[in-house]
Amino acid sequence: MQGQIMDYPLTTNTILEYGNRVFHHKRIISHLPDGSRHEYTFGEMYARTKQLANALKHTLGVVEGDTVGTFAWNHGPHVELYYGISGIGAICHPINIRLSIQQIEYIINHAEDKVIFVDATLVRMLEPIAARLETVRHWVLLNAPEGFTTSLQNAHRYEDLLEAEPDEIDWPALDENQACGMCYTSGTTGLPKGVLYSHRSTYLHAMTILSPNAGNVSNRDVVLLVVPQFHVMAWGYPYLCVLAGADMVLPSSNLQPAALIKMMQAEGVNKANGVPTIWLGIYQEMKKDPPAEPLALEEYVVGGSALPKSLIKAFQEDFGIQGIHAWGMTETSPLGTLSRLQPQHDRLADAERLRIRAKQGIAFPGVELRIVSDEGTPLPWDGQTMGELQIRGAWVIDSYFKTGNRESFTGDGWFRTGDVSTIDADGYMEIKDRTKDLIKSGGEWISSVALESTLMAHPKVKEAAVIAIPDERWIERPLATVVLQDSSDLVTNTDLKEFLARDFAKYQVPDDYVYLKEIPKTSVGKFDKKELRRLYAEGELGE
Amino acid sequence: MQGQIMDYPLTTNTILEYGNRVFHHKRIISHLPDGSRHEYTFGEMYARTKQLANALKHTLGVVEGDTVGTFAWNHGPHVELYYGISGIGAICHPINIRLSIQQIEYIINHAEDKVIFVDATLVRMLEPIAARLETVRHWVLLNAPEGFTTSLQNAHRYEDLLEAEPDEIDWPALDENQACGMCYTSGTTGLPKGVLYSHRSTYLHAMTILSPNAGNVSNRDVVLLVVPQFHVMAWGYPYLCVLAGADMVLPSSNLQPAALIKMMQAEGVNKANGVPTIWLGIYQEMKKDPPAEPLALEEYVVGGSALPKSLIKAFQEDFGIQGIHAWGMTETSPLGTLSRLQPQHDRLADAERLRIRAKQGIAFPGVELRIVSDEGTPLPWDGQTMGELQIRGAWVIDSYFKTGNRESFTGDGWFRTGDVSTIDADGYMEIKDRTKDLIKSGGEWISSVALESTLMAHPKVKEAAVIAIPDERWIERPLATVVLQDSSDLVTNTDLKEFLARDFAKYQVPDDYVYLKEIPKTSVGKFDKKELRRLYAEGELGE
Repeated sequence: MQGQIMDYPLTTNTILEYGNRVFHHKRIISHLPDGSRHEYTFGEMYARTKQLANALKHTLGVVEGDTVGTFAWNHGPHVELYYGISGIGAICHPINIRLSIQQIEYIINHAEDKVIFVDATLVRMLEPIAARLETVRHWVLLNAPEGFTTSLQNAHRYEDLLEAEPDEIDWPALDENQACGMCYTSGTTGLPKGVLYSHRSTYLHAMTILSPNAGNVSNRDVVLLVVPQFHVMAWGYPYLCVLAGADMVLPSSNLQPAALIKMMQAEGVNKANGVPTIWLGIYQEMKKDPPAEPLALEEYVVGGSALPKSLIKAFQEDFGIQGIHAWGMTETSPLGTLSRLQPQHDRLADAERLRIRAKQGIAFPGVELRIVSDEGTPLPWDGQTMGELQIRGAWVIDSYFKTGNRESFTGDGWFRTGDVSTIDADGYMEIKDRTKDLIKSGGEWISSVALESTLMAHPKVKEAAVIAIPDERWIERPLATVVLQDSSDLVTNTDLKEFLARDFAKYQVPDDYVYLKEIPKTSVGKFDKKELRRLYAEGELGE
Repeated sequence: MQGQIMDYPLTTNTILEYGNRVFHHKRIISHLPDGSRHEYTFGEMYARTKQLANALKHTLGVVEGDTVGTFAWNHGPHVELYYGISGIGAICHPINIRLSIQQIEYIINHAEDKVIFVDATLVRMLEPIAARLETVRHWVLLNAPEGFTTSLQNAHRYEDLLEAEPDEIDWPALDENQACGMCYTSGTTGLPKGVLYSHRSTYLHAMTILSPNAGNVSNRDVVLLVVPQFHVMAWGYPYLCVLAGADMVLPSSNLQPAALIKMMQAEGVNKANGVPTIWLGIYQEMKKDPPAEPLALEEYVVGGSALPKSLIKAFQEDFGIQGIHAWGMTETSPLGTLSRLQPQHDRLADAERLRIRAKQGIAFPGVELRIVSDEGTPLPWDGQTMGELQIRGAWVIDSYFKTGNRESFTGDGWFRTGDVSTIDADGYMEIKDRTKDLIKSGGEWISSVALESTLMAHPKVKEAAVIAIPDERWIERPLATVVLQDSSDLVTNTDLKEFLARDFAKYQVPDDYVYLKEIPKTSVGKFDKKELRRLYAEGELGE
């Protein structure tokens, strides 16, 4: 037909090629797991990514549609993997290193990863399960010193692989709707679920998140990516920083508050992201040991858990640094909302402005929110009425990988978040509660239901209910309330911890246990968690 | 398939609905042709747009795929037309009111406009050609006082139309690749050519142009849209201001420098756009009559013609206001590049920084540039080598409306701009020359070839060559060099002007004429315009 626009698919290759053409001189600075600092340019990253793409095809036998796992911290090679794997039409699957080893095994088998790229410092975690990984044909060791040894079969050093390859490649023609990335949910309500991101959704999410109302990232910024690349594609920052021409600072495993502060100082970081726990730690460290020179840091974007008002306030008052609250989920690429003040808020009192900043914020263009009643009726945006938060849009999934599960989707095309929210007249969404079964500790979900069912599998436990209790460092920690089969039984916290540790990641295992005669129940006989929270989480009988 | 992202088409309706949901309280302020000021909100605009959409369907019989013309200044109703027409799947076709009446007649017939929405103050221009417009079934009068009379058949008052309609509508499901807008080129090299924009290209262009490296527009901005809505969809600003939640100030015909300054003061405008001529006029006015209070204006984005270094410098030094140079074409939606300084320029001398700002700038993500030799070979990005500028991307056309013309497109999928440019190592493009036949006066193209062929059609003219000469107000004006058939003929400038005025818009007719014995020729016998420019445009023999 005459009178058309060019067909120009939105792919990760268009991002990579753009970054090289226009921002080849911009920098990627990695503070590697061994403590060394590495700096190179987008142009150098681009050349190495093409070498990687050639190695994937030639040495590792990866073809379009294959999934390729990564098990790694944030650093330059991991950025190369994001672009190199998806560049040849394969699917980059960062694996959350903080899950239990059972979950990791399940995820790799379920995703059918053909190759796994693993940081040398993390290799020991995977060696014990390697024999049970059904689809993995090759292992590639990142940041591995020469002569590094492993029991993994078919293991290659990343640098050796790249060295053997030319840095030119003809990218294949890709459909923007095909998958480029994959993440698993944390398995809070059963097994972890796989989520595929398309090239298009990745591009649109990144282009939107760099906009001034959102992350506000430009070629004048130096951005610290605290959010791990194994967490929902690091919130899209490895893509959006290239689109924006922003320098990236990647901390790998150097996530201790003092290390991050030193890094921000050394690199002139002015923007950053992360979960609240990290920023609480940084604040406390800065309070304890104030930096001699003020940081260049202007703002940090926080998601993963609610950003406490008190932290927003303290960071701003003590150091003039703005906390920007955002919200999203694995199923939403992840970012869906962000809270910045608008001119209509300029005249409000400080407390009121803080209240708005502590909300999860307004939706970005490209996604839509609604709250609905239990019957599915849309509810008013009055800032008062609470309902289940639902979302749809250009980077929201319409199904999980390899499952027919439709529970999380409405018949009319919305994703059910499981959060209970209000939305005010200006569109600011606030999460008021959530599916009561979930605990979020240091940015990671913990399923109380899963803990309970395991605890109740212990021979001496009759009933167990797990709730979240406030925690200074992790925001929330699980507390297990337990009724023993026989009150004369002798069961110690250590017994229960050891029992749980067989199935759960370390951070998921409760530190605290309360032994009760019975667990309060609702009228229909369910555990009354509201009552438990009142008793143990809100200070009535708690510490 | 399982594991997919939702199908979420990028349409103008998603923009409109988003603006209403999240930024319903943001303002559209119109300074109307009669001098009155009108202010309303995005929410009110949204309700009226739905009334308009209903009127288009019910009263005006517009169906999906129809073209609907607008002949109007910048104001709220014209924004409603942008969204209302495309919202029902029809194509919004703003007609450039500054073209000659012959061109306007040609364009309306070629576009097959079914309805034309016309400002009451412009109705007299169209009445004389109405009978020759083959497809127009209805006229709708914008900003028309009650009792306004016209000879146009089937004329309706816009307000009457809207009033009769409900403000609820079920938008049809639209394919993001279908057309939502249409503009014609200025016909610089022959007849005007039609260009269709898709919903997708419009969305992606707007979302990209609001980004921090580009227009940098957020919900904290008050933006003055000097660029007319009849010029390439006002550079996408009516879309991107809604996406960004920025207040829009629309000046309609109040484009005199003093009026614009007063408007910026009254409305607290902090960002603006426009062609260089407008900003030169504003600068001169501010110099002559400095505002008592400094303007809130921070920056103005200029495109359409080269932004002179001297103007960038003077505006900045005298008033602290930044001129931001951008470049684009009707065929590119229009914006393709923009020039902002980056951190690597911070250490440069002022003169060098000015030199970079005066370049057309770096490409946006979503479009790609290249320069090629006469043989089509890509040339190096060294800031020195000149070649034809070519562009491709997500908002560049791959064909013109209703023509098989392929001259403007390369075999490998690039659009040939006709500009001759350099690109430096950092991707900054600079237009060095252009297809020698074009003159750009006050942001409007004038074809020297077209003027020449008409001049040479005058019985007493033997040869005519038209070149651009510098002009303080219009940047460039055409100068006609003429050889008479008989040197004893008596021909006045007025004769030639009147002769040209039959076929050309007023601004296209040269003011200046030089009578020569012969026109210098190149070795192959073509007019040597380079030599003419040396003689008359660069001061050798000029004024």
